[in-house]
Amino acid sequence: MGKMKAQRFWGKEDLRYEDIDEPQCSAGKIKIKPAWCGICGTDLHEYMGGPNLCPEKEPHPITGEKVPLTFGHEFSGRIEEIGEKVSDKFKVGDRVVVQPIIYDGECGSCTEGLINCCDKNGFVGLSGWGGGLADHIVVPEYAVFKVPDNVPLDVAALTEPLAVGWHAVNLSPYKDGDSVLILGGGPIGLAVLQALRARGCKQIIVSEISATRKKFAKEFGAHVIIDPSKEDIVARCRELCDDKGVHVAFDAAGVQMAMEQAVRCVRARGTFVNIAIWEKQAKINTNDFNFRERHYVGVATYMGGDFDEVLAALSDGRLDMSRKMITKKIELNEVLEEGFKTLINDRDNQVKILVKSSGEM
Amino acid sequence: MGKMKAQRFWGKEDLRYEDIDEPQCSAGKIKIKPAWCGICGTDLHEYMGGPNLCPEKEPHPITGEKVPLTFGHEFSGRIEEIGEKVSDKFKVGDRVVVQPIIYDGECGSCTEGLINCCDKNGFVGLSGWGGGLADHIVVPEYAVFKVPDNVPLDVAALTEPLAVGWHAVNLSPYKDGDSVLILGGGPIGLAVLQALRARGCKQIIVSEISATRKKFAKEFGAHVIIDPSKEDIVARCRELCDDKGVHVAFDAAGVQMAMEQAVRCVRARGTFVNIAIWEKQAKINTNDFNFRERHYVGVATYMGGDFDEVLAALSDGRLDMSRKMITKKIELNEVLEEGFKTLINDRDNQVKILVKSSGEM
Repeated sequence: MGKMKAQRFWGKEDLRYEDIDEPQCSAGKIKIKPAWCGICGTDLHEYMGGPNLCPEKEPHPITGEKVPLTFGHEFSGRIEEIGEKVSDKFKVGDRVVVQPIIYDGECGSCTEGLINCCDKNGFVGLSGWGGGLADHIVVPEYAVFKVPDNVPLDVAALTEPLAVGWHAVNLSPYKDGDSVLILGGGPIGLAVLQALRARGCKQIIVSEISATRKKFAKEFGAHVIIDPSKEDIVARCRELCDDKGVHVAFDAAGVQMAMEQAVRCVRARGTFVNIAIWEKQAKINTNDFNFRERHYVGVATYMGGDFDEVLAALSDGRLDMSRKMITKKIELNEVLEEGFKTLINDRDNQVKILVKSSGEM
Repeated sequence: MGKMKAQRFWGKEDLRYEDIDEPQCSAGKIKIKPAWCGICGTDLHEYMGGPNLCPEKEPHPITGEKVPLTFGHEFSGRIEEIGEKVSDKFKVGDRVVVQPIIYDGECGSCTEGLINCCDKNGFVGLSGWGGGLADHIVVPEYAVFKVPDNVPLDVAALTEPLAVGWHAVNLSPYKDGDSVLILGGGPIGLAVLQALRARGCKQIIVSEISATRKKFAKEFGAHVIIDPSKEDIVARCRELCDDKGVHVAFDAAGVQMAMEQAVRCVRARGTFVNIAIWEKQAKINTNDFNFRERHYVGVATYMGGDFDEVLAALSDGRLDMSRKMITKKIELNEVLEEGFKTLINDRDNQVKILVKSSGEM
């Protein structure tokens, strides 16, 4: 058994670039050579304050693994080996991305098809089965999606974060003609923005305080950008939306004060969609929901057709392939210094940092 | 101008049985002689800790009134005078109930037909225009609903609280075959229970700790009653509902710990409906919403067809007219001692106390 390089998470502020055993392909599984892998806010949260999602004391109920775990759940690559019993849909050499959801297939949620709500829910690159920040990875067939020929593999590595935004819009009641507020111009806020642009939304308001992120939001097609530290966001949203407020708000920030204000930006019977992972309980003014019959929805990653829809939208141009999301590319051995530390110290100037593995397009 | 008796709220712990001017009918308005009027939890909250909803310093933007205000928003009665311009749908002598919503008709919510979400929202019996705890009241035509001949006026006085439960079920995604959890066996919890029974719901679970209220829930047709202080409500709900949890939960209690648990009783993509008015912010575990894509909905009183639907359901027997809700009847001069104080000190043994005005059936 050969050795390979991997970026492994050992615990809080402990990420190591190591030589580990190369994973072996087996029945029902596909071995992939990663091409590009994005660094996610979730990776940073684990590194700075975790382990949270990563199993630490008890092994994950499905993977049987706990830290140290290989990081990386936003990646593209090429199939290098196919296990027995894998359908003939896949062949060696296929360009693919991985939907990293790990699920048991038998809990109440899974039996209803809601694999992203699995009771034992986990993620490739966070809960075991390796990760994209390595030379090789082996995953079950169900996790693998083919990349259309005209989508380069660095752009394809954005499928996962784009699918988060795409899914949130799919799960929301958003429909043609609706106006929308997005809280936060980071990677997920921008993914929601792009998903809405792909749907032809004509009134996208982004709330953001960072000057650089405001610029990003503008470049990605926001119609109005509001700085809630300088303007009355509730009054502005009402003014922009028939004195009623937006139909749907998407929270990609997870900040208490901003959330409280944003709820009041939503019109009666409108919906507040939370995508952000909060580190503590959120406080809600229940009267703001009752007296306007507002709805609140939590969304979890992606599922079902989301990956295929995003890949198709990239291929046919509804989603922009101009690489505006990719603000930096680094090598696999640079993940800590040039990746994590850049995102921690220069957060506002970065959207997505991609880590080169094979570097193939 | 004659004088009449009224129960008026002057401020915290200050309710007075007084002689006030009898209201005069005018164009577009209808004068009613109340028959029976229920005491609501909201009245008690105002009395014990208010004024909250009742305008105290500034007059209400629509009624122009502030405390002292006549109480009573759950009442039936008979039309005694009709103002000019009232449609010929109504005539003197009609038996009626009043939907107490006060709205401006021109804000963003009202123009969408959501009068219960009006920006200036108020209530007859809390915000001015008199109340049902008086010998006479004058209200706009839009607030008046005719009572079917076979519904006695004491039962008709329950239309308002029943409409709260009816509306909550209407606004929820509840559909045939769904299982439901209700938090709290007080008047509103029981109203939700009755609305669900009227819809033919086969799995109604009520969470309640008071022995007397458990008994009420049983009498009103709950299929399962869980005492969350003695049983693991999350495990029980899953066990009762295909290892998934209920489709919809209705919170008619507004208790932090109970709410947190109840959210976890809801299956993936299920809905938590809040009816309770909280006196402070509620804390939610956002992960419980995100990781199961659960929905939260706030509901506000009633609107549109709710009153007519409840009256029709009472008339045709889908809602029970056996007066089980009415646990005590008192005189207008006894509201403080026999009404409010009984509800405060003997809360668990009471569902609805009705105050007799004309006492007509």
